[in-house]
Amino acid sequence: MNKRISKRTLSRLPIYLSLLQEKEREGVEYISATTIANLLDLNHVQVRKDLSCASSAGRPKVGYETKVLISDLKVFLDYNNTKNAVIVGAGDLGKALLGYNGFTSYGLNIVAAFDTNPELCGTLIKGKHIYDADMIEQMVHELNIDIGIITTPARYAQSTCDKLIAGGVKAIWNFAPTSLTTPKNIIVQNENMATSLAVLSNKLNELSNK
Amino acid sequence: MNKRISKRTLSRLPIYLSLLQEKEREGVEYISATTIANLLDLNHVQVRKDLSCASSAGRPKVGYETKVLISDLKVFLDYNNTKNAVIVGAGDLGKALLGYNGFTSYGLNIVAAFDTNPELCGTLIKGKHIYDADMIEQMVHELNIDIGIITTPARYAQSTCDKLIAGGVKAIWNFAPTSLTTPKNIIVQNENMATSLAVLSNKLNELSNK
Repeated sequence: MNKRISKRTLSRLPIYLSLLQEKEREGVEYISATTIANLLDLNHVQVRKDLSCASSAGRPKVGYETKVLISDLKVFLDYNNTKNAVIVGAGDLGKALLGYNGFTSYGLNIVAAFDTNPELCGTLIKGKHIYDADMIEQMVHELNIDIGIITTPARYAQSTCDKLIAGGVKAIWNFAPTSLTTPKNIIVQNENMATSLAVLSNKLNELSNK
Repeated sequence: MNKRISKRTLSRLPIYLSLLQEKEREGVEYISATTIANLLDLNHVQVRKDLSCASSAGRPKVGYETKVLISDLKVFLDYNNTKNAVIVGAGDLGKALLGYNGFTSYGLNIVAAFDTNPELCGTLIKGKHIYDADMIEQMVHELNIDIGIITTPARYAQSTCDKLIAGGVKAIWNFAPTSLTTPKNIIVQNENMATSLAVLSNKLNELSNK
């Protein structure tokens, strides 16, 4: 689980897992790296190499036992150890993340959310309590929160980040469209819409220039 | 603009652009690759190489004229050519994307949204019309839409994708947590929360195992 692994490989593992869970529901008991590669439009050597980081369950000719590979991937991705998170910013994006049912299966437990809007504070959204943003530091500390998810407007992102870190989070998942300054020991994962859009637009251009 | 460029480099260009725009607002007229590298915690050789794909404006000792580099990056990223898009699924995530003001500066014009909920159809959300999902194919065709953005639940994503393609979109930006089957000539960009979360969790583990 603590093995060094490239970010690219790591990014593909949840995609394999999701496919395998689909296949398990369809009753597929054994699956080969070649089948996985074909279904995901990847190279089979790559798939075999990626999966070898997380599992040694593959057997020549038979392939992988679906159930075992799913279990190995979940262990490797640490989906069985729940990490506590809070969301700051209960706007549309914050609400979307609060309502996303998939997170618990990835080991992420969203405990509560914070907002500065007094009309939201004290209410429940998607079954989660919304607290006043003034309480971030205190509550992050008391609830032993690992991950702070920032869905505020860009101009509030840095001050929010500072409060989360003061409260003791180890990682920041930043959805605000701005870059954050953090101490070296804090993990930051930025979700940048502009980045995805740039990749998409560039491919569109290549297509129209063909 | 049609130069071949790695996805990694492409992903960094909007980040440079965003930093440069910030610096321009602060009155910075010239900036060096080393300064950019330090501010973004990147290697300066990498930054220089990345920027050389989009601009030849850098000069030894002086660096880049901020204004010129911004303009070159915008041209390269094709932010000046507006591409029309529709969103299917006006739930929380759809609403969040409808309300995201940043897209127009990236050349993305969200024209309208679709939903199956009769209470939403015919209304305006964030100033955009919401239409019945039955009209996707016809309206995508009539409005000459390039990009279809899918924010439906996973189980409706494939049928939505099929309708968008039947209407004539060239690219799909998929936020639904499922994989899509599309013809080879269609560009698909998946936004996968699980993937980001896996990278974050793995880094958290490395940290706690140190």
